[in-house]
Amino acid sequence: MKIALSQLNYHIGNFSDNKRKIIREIQKAEKAGADLVVFAELAISGYPPRDFLEFEDFVKKCNAAIDEIANHCTKTAAIIGTPVFNPNSKGKPLYNAAAFLWEGKVQKHFFKTLLPNYDIFDEYRYFEPNRQFEVLTFKGFKIAVNICEDLWNVTENPLYTINPMDEVIGMNPDFIINIAASPFNYHQIDIRTDVLRRNATKYHLPLFYVNHVGAQTELLFDGGSLVMGSNGEILDEMAYFEEDFRVYHFNDILQGKVIRGVTNHRTVIAMIHDALVMGIQNYFKKLGFGKAILGLSGGIDSAVTAVLAAKALGNKNVYNVLLPSRFSSDHSITDAQNLAENVAMPYDIIEIEKPFRAFEDTLKPFFRDLPFDVTEENLQARIRGVLLMALSNKFGYILLNTSNKSEAAVGYGTLYGDMNGGLSVLGDVYKTRVFELAHYINRESEIIPENIITKPPSAELRPGQKDTDSLPDYESLDEILYQYIERRQGPKEIIEMGFDEKLVRRILKMVNTNEYKRYQTPPILRVSSKAFGMGRRMPIVAKYLS
Amino acid sequence: MKIALSQLNYHIGNFSDNKRKIIREIQKAEKAGADLVVFAELAISGYPPRDFLEFEDFVKKCNAAIDEIANHCTKTAAIIGTPVFNPNSKGKPLYNAAAFLWEGKVQKHFFKTLLPNYDIFDEYRYFEPNRQFEVLTFKGFKIAVNICEDLWNVTENPLYTINPMDEVIGMNPDFIINIAASPFNYHQIDIRTDVLRRNATKYHLPLFYVNHVGAQTELLFDGGSLVMGSNGEILDEMAYFEEDFRVYHFNDILQGKVIRGVTNHRTVIAMIHDALVMGIQNYFKKLGFGKAILGLSGGIDSAVTAVLAAKALGNKNVYNVLLPSRFSSDHSITDAQNLAENVAMPYDIIEIEKPFRAFEDTLKPFFRDLPFDVTEENLQARIRGVLLMALSNKFGYILLNTSNKSEAAVGYGTLYGDMNGGLSVLGDVYKTRVFELAHYINRESEIIPENIITKPPSAELRPGQKDTDSLPDYESLDEILYQYIERRQGPKEIIEMGFDEKLVRRILKMVNTNEYKRYQTPPILRVSSKAFGMGRRMPIVAKYLS
Repeated sequence: MKIALSQLNYHIGNFSDNKRKIIREIQKAEKAGADLVVFAELAISGYPPRDFLEFEDFVKKCNAAIDEIANHCTKTAAIIGTPVFNPNSKGKPLYNAAAFLWEGKVQKHFFKTLLPNYDIFDEYRYFEPNRQFEVLTFKGFKIAVNICEDLWNVTENPLYTINPMDEVIGMNPDFIINIAASPFNYHQIDIRTDVLRRNATKYHLPLFYVNHVGAQTELLFDGGSLVMGSNGEILDEMAYFEEDFRVYHFNDILQGKVIRGVTNHRTVIAMIHDALVMGIQNYFKKLGFGKAILGLSGGIDSAVTAVLAAKALGNKNVYNVLLPSRFSSDHSITDAQNLAENVAMPYDIIEIEKPFRAFEDTLKPFFRDLPFDVTEENLQARIRGVLLMALSNKFGYILLNTSNKSEAAVGYGTLYGDMNGGLSVLGDVYKTRVFELAHYINRESEIIPENIITKPPSAELRPGQKDTDSLPDYESLDEILYQYIERRQGPKEIIEMGFDEKLVRRILKMVNTNEYKRYQTPPILRVSSKAFGMGRRMPIVAKYLS
Repeated sequence: MKIALSQLNYHIGNFSDNKRKIIREIQKAEKAGADLVVFAELAISGYPPRDFLEFEDFVKKCNAAIDEIANHCTKTAAIIGTPVFNPNSKGKPLYNAAAFLWEGKVQKHFFKTLLPNYDIFDEYRYFEPNRQFEVLTFKGFKIAVNICEDLWNVTENPLYTINPMDEVIGMNPDFIINIAASPFNYHQIDIRTDVLRRNATKYHLPLFYVNHVGAQTELLFDGGSLVMGSNGEILDEMAYFEEDFRVYHFNDILQGKVIRGVTNHRTVIAMIHDALVMGIQNYFKKLGFGKAILGLSGGIDSAVTAVLAAKALGNKNVYNVLLPSRFSSDHSITDAQNLAENVAMPYDIIEIEKPFRAFEDTLKPFFRDLPFDVTEENLQARIRGVLLMALSNKFGYILLNTSNKSEAAVGYGTLYGDMNGGLSVLGDVYKTRVFELAHYINRESEIIPENIITKPPSAELRPGQKDTDSLPDYESLDEILYQYIERRQGPKEIIEMGFDEKLVRRILKMVNTNEYKRYQTPPILRVSSKAFGMGRRMPIVAKYLS
C-alpha cells in the first residue's frame, strides 16, 4: 500500500479554493499510485472556523464540498477533516469528523473524541465528543483513524478521563493516522513530537500525522507533518511553514526504514522569524492586500517589523513613514533612514509638528495652564496614528502594529496611537527577544543598523525620555512577565523565585489594570504558548492583583 | 425552616469586598432567624472570573475567603458558589461548586454537572463536569442543590446527554435550590422562568433560585431571583437590576402561598433601558471612575447615550463635547446644546477645523490632488477621537462609545475615531431600537429634542451626507441583521423570508468583511441573545459570504 500525505494551507470558509486544492492533490496522489491520501483536520473549512460553525449554511457548504471531492476519489481514497451534523437528538449539533472517501462517495466518518477547550481552542463550543470506536478496514489493513487531540491524553495528570487509542487497540490496528490542526508556538514542535512518540511506542504502531500549514489571522500553523516508526523514530518529516506533499510505501514504514529522517533542525529564533514572516504574508494574501505601511521610529521594534514585512511582502511593498516630533532625536531619523535604505524600502518623512500645534491651540482654552503630562505624550502617538491611517485609507495599505509583548503586557503604549494596526507582528515577542530577532536578521550582514540595536529604548515623547524612566529593565520585566503570563504563576510563587516583591507586585498590577487596552488591540501573531488575544481571556472590570 | 435568599452585586476578584458583603448578609439572615442563606453561583469570585481561574493563586484565594466566611456560619448555614480544585488525578483541574457552610466550617461541596460552553460561556474551559449525585440533608429536609445550567436540559433537542435532576429525584428531595449566574438579555427573563417552571412541575418540587445582579464589564446580570411553588407558580420574585435580600418560611412555600407573586411587569424597552443604566454605573464604579465624556453630535445615538450616562452617573458627571466640522449643520449644534441643557449636563463646543487643516496641509505633499474620499471623512472622525481622548487623559474621564449595533454590524464607523471608547453603550442596540429608547426616555417629557429623533440620520462628514447614501434603510437592515446575527440564518433562509437577494448578500458581506473593525472595539453592554464581543467569535481572515 502507498499512502500520500498532503500538507496544505487552507483559507477559512473559502470552499472553492480549498476544494480545488484538495482535488488537485488527490489527482497528484492518484498519478503517484497512492492508495490513500490524507489531509488535515477540518481541512475543508480551514481551521479554526469558529462561530461560522453555528451557521447551518456553513456546515452544509462543507458537506457539499466533501461530496463533490468524493467524485474524484474513484481509485485513490482520501481522508479529509470536515464538520458534520450530529444525527442524534441529544448533544451538541456537530461532530468534528475525518471523512473517508472512496469509490466516488463518502464511505464513513470517524469522530473526534477529545475536544480541546483551552487556550485558543473552543472545540467543546461546537462539537459533541465521540463515544463509539472502530477502525477503518481498507485493502486488507486496519487503520486507527483519529483527530489531533485524540492522541494527546498521555501526560501524568491527563486532562481527559478517556483515551481513544485504548479503545481501539484491542481491534488490532496496523497503524495510526492522525489528522491535526496543531498551531505553532516555539515549544510546540518538541511537545508534539514527544506526544506522537509516546503513542507510537505505547501501542507499537507506525503513525502518519498530517498537520495544517499557513496562518489563520493570529494562528500560525507550521506544518511539520511526519511519519513515525513503531519504535518512535521519525522516519520522515515534511516541510515547515510551507505546503508539502509526499508518498510513502507502507512496507518501508512498517520496516522502520528512515526516509529522510529529521531534516529540520532549527533554532527557536529562526522558527519565530519564519513563523512571523509567514503570518504577515498569509494575512495580507488571504485578505487580498499586497502593501503594508508602518511608522518607522528609529527604534528596534519598528525596525524588526519592517524587515519581517519586507521578507513577507517584498521590500517595495513596505512603505515606511518617519514621523518625527519636536522631541525626536536626530539619530532616530538617520537610523530609520539607514534601515529603509539598507532594505531598499520606500519611505517618507512627515513632521507631526503642525497638527500637534493645532491640537495644542484647539485644546488650550480647555487645558488652560495645566502642565505637560501623559496627555501630550499620547497626543503625539495619536497624531502619528491618524497620519498613518490616512495614508492607509487613501492608498490601500494595511497598517502594521509594531508593539512588542513587554509593552502590550504593561500597557506601555497609546490606545488609538501606536497601538493601531491591522495586525500586530511582535505583540507575542518580548522585548529581549526582539533584540534576538534583530541579531538573527543581522546574522550575515548589517541590515538593521547597529545603533538601532545598541541605543537605550525610548518613546521620545518628552525631552530625554527613556523606557527605563517608567519601566523596570527589560531583563527582569520579561522574566517576571513570562512567569505570570506563560506559566500562570501567582505573586507568591514569583517572589519565591527570588524577584523583588515590590517589583513583582507592581508589574502584575500593570498587567491586570491594562486589560482594557489589550481588549482593543489588533490580532497578534502567536508564537508563544500564551499570547494576548483569543487564547487569554481576562475580565476587564476586576480587582485581582490590581 | 426559614430560608433566606441573598441577591448581591459582586466584583470579580475583589475578595475583600465580596467576603465582607457575604458575611454582612449571613449576619442579617441570622438576625432574621433564617436556618439557611443562599448566595449565587461563583459568588466569591464574581462571575465570570474567566482565565483568572487558571491561576492557582486565584482559586486558593477563593477557598481562603470561603473558609473565613465559614467561621460566621455557626447557627445559620450558607450555600455559596465557589471554584474548588478537582481532587482526582484525571480531568480538568477545577469544579464549579456550591459550598455548604455550617457549624463554622465547609461541610460539603456540590459540583456542577452541565457546563455551558456557548455564546458568552466558557465553563468547559476550566471545569470538570460532576458525575456523582447526592442530596443535601439538613434539619430533616433533603435538598437537591444544583447550579444554574444543571436545570437547563429541558428542551426537546437537549444540548446535553444527562439530566442532573433525573439523577437525584429518586432520593426524594423536598425542594430544589439552584444557584445561578444567568446574564440578562431581553428574551432571558421569559426563557429562564419557563425553564424553572418546567423543572418545578416535572419534579413536583418547590424551587429557590438565586441569581447574580450587577454588571461585569459587558455582562449585565438582572437578578430576578425567585421562589416557585411545585405547581410552577412564581410565589415571590426579587428585585431586578438591584441587590435584594428576603427570608421565606418553607411551610409557606410548600403550601404554595403567594408571597408577593410576580411584581415586575416590564416592557422590553424598559428592561433594556434599566440594564444599560446599570451597565454604565457598574463599569465606572467598579473601575473607580466617576465621570464620563462623550462626543455629542446632535444625532440620536449620542443623545441617548448621554441621557443613559446621566441617569447612571449623575447629570453633572457627563461631559458632552460638541465637535463641529465645516460639514456640520447648524441644527446639529443647537440640537446637541438643547439636549445638554435639558438634562443640565456640562458641555463645550470645540471646532475641529484647525487640526483638520493642519492634517490637510501635512498630507498634501503625499495626497497631491487626489479627490476627497472616505479618507477625509475618517480624518474628521479621528480628530474628534483624538480631542476626546486628550480631554479624557487630562481630566480622568472615561470616554463612552456611542455606536449602535446596526453600524457596528456593517462597519459604518471609523476605527480610532467614533469607534473609540472605554465602553460601548449602544453597541448591542439596533438603530430602530435606539429610536424606541429615545421615545421611552421622552415618555413623560421631551428630554431628547424632538428634532434629534425625527431628522434623517447623518454622519455629516461630507456636504449633504445621509446614512441612506451608503446604507439600506434601517428597518430592512435591522431585520436582516437580526436574522443573521441573533438567529444565525444563512443567506438562503433570509432570502426565502422575502428579502431582496442582492440586499441580503450585500449586508451579509458587509458584516463579515468588517470583522476586523469589531475586533478592536470596546466592550459592548450585552442586552440581546447575541452581542458582538465575547459571545460571538468570528475569524477575521476568512472568505465566507464575503
